[in-house]
Amino acid sequence: MQIAVLLYDRFTALDAVGPYEVLSRLPGAELSFVAAEARPYTTDTDRLTLVAERTLDDVPRPDVLLVPGGPGEDAMHDERVLQWIRTAHETTTWTTSVCTGSLILARAGILDGVRATGHWLAMKRLGELGAVPVHERIVEDGKVITAAGVSAGIDMALHLASRIAGDDVAQFVQLFIEYDPQPPFDAGSPEKAPAELVARAKAMSRFYAPVAG
Amino acid sequence: MQIAVLLYDRFTALDAVGPYEVLSRLPGAELSFVAAEARPYTTDTDRLTLVAERTLDDVPRPDVLLVPGGPGEDAMHDERVLQWIRTAHETTTWTTSVCTGSLILARAGILDGVRATGHWLAMKRLGELGAVPVHERIVEDGKVITAAGVSAGIDMALHLASRIAGDDVAQFVQLFIEYDPQPPFDAGSPEKAPAELVARAKAMSRFYAPVAG
Repeated sequence: MQIAVLLYDRFTALDAVGPYEVLSRLPGAELSFVAAEARPYTTDTDRLTLVAERTLDDVPRPDVLLVPGGPGEDAMHDERVLQWIRTAHETTTWTTSVCTGSLILARAGILDGVRATGHWLAMKRLGELGAVPVHERIVEDGKVITAAGVSAGIDMALHLASRIAGDDVAQFVQLFIEYDPQPPFDAGSPEKAPAELVARAKAMSRFYAPVAG
Repeated sequence: MQIAVLLYDRFTALDAVGPYEVLSRLPGAELSFVAAEARPYTTDTDRLTLVAERTLDDVPRPDVLLVPGGPGEDAMHDERVLQWIRTAHETTTWTTSVCTGSLILARAGILDGVRATGHWLAMKRLGELGAVPVHERIVEDGKVITAAGVSAGIDMALHLASRIAGDDVAQFVQLFIEYDPQPPFDAGSPEKAPAELVARAKAMSRFYAPVAG
């Protein structure tokens, strides 16, 4: 089972690494980080660099495709990546995204009329790109599974692990990565966070929002 | 404020990237990935490579030190790293670890008599190395903050963020990374997981357990 995690410039690291930590531990999984070029890619914070060991051409038909998000969604503007997504999606078992990765899937044209989620600040844009936005943590519609912002990729990957390998395997990985979350605050969604912080995030999102194009 | 995240061969990616995703977003934070050599380091799964842009000598006196875990805890056997930890710890504001990173701190000799946690499979070993093992998700003792296995680094980093920059900033980052965890199973600790899976993990831990020495 080939699992391809897409990298591109300015992606958000945890979007990719959260699911990687789960999915790379599935029996028989051959997970690789792929990108338009086999080179290092620097994240949105400019503080971390991950290496894409394989090119899109190296992994044209992955069984599982995972697209992380990132401010600007730079991959939206690379026709090589969009074409790869379109072609790969024809034969994937699961096509998945985390955060604004769903905008990239939508931009590739594969979310038309599909129920999908993404970062809470990007839901409107997701609709504009043709998807049916659903403000939930994980949304499964056919073979497309999308996750909400950044950290939601871990939840999504455990859900996907159970679909691929069964509940036992998913729970075993959860135990191994000791995913028994105990956040010190309950501010992880716009419904739960203090209103002032939500407003501040929305104001900042002028910069965070994806570039039209 | 300098934040140094240690890399070494066969570290566990999420141990480092979870906290990075939180701490790199703190106002005034200058976070860097440091290692004995400035080069790419491959994770425990052999499927992912992160780049350490700076050497230990480049960041001798970080304000915050974060040591991730990894099976084998290879850094335990590198005297350059252990000496760097000892020296850095003299002047850090916070010295922190995730998962078996606490074994590395202990091996460096800075956890003698200190209350600390780590991966649930490594608690006995943590005690053997001189720490006072406490089976909790986050343990703060003086300026040392340790976290349980792998994913616990996200919780720890939010706790640390509140200590460094206040509750508002920590909650803002939590909202930004949409950390509103909703795992599909409740199997993230040995108390909660099915007994059969716990037993299987313990059996596997013969391989996972840190090498003596």
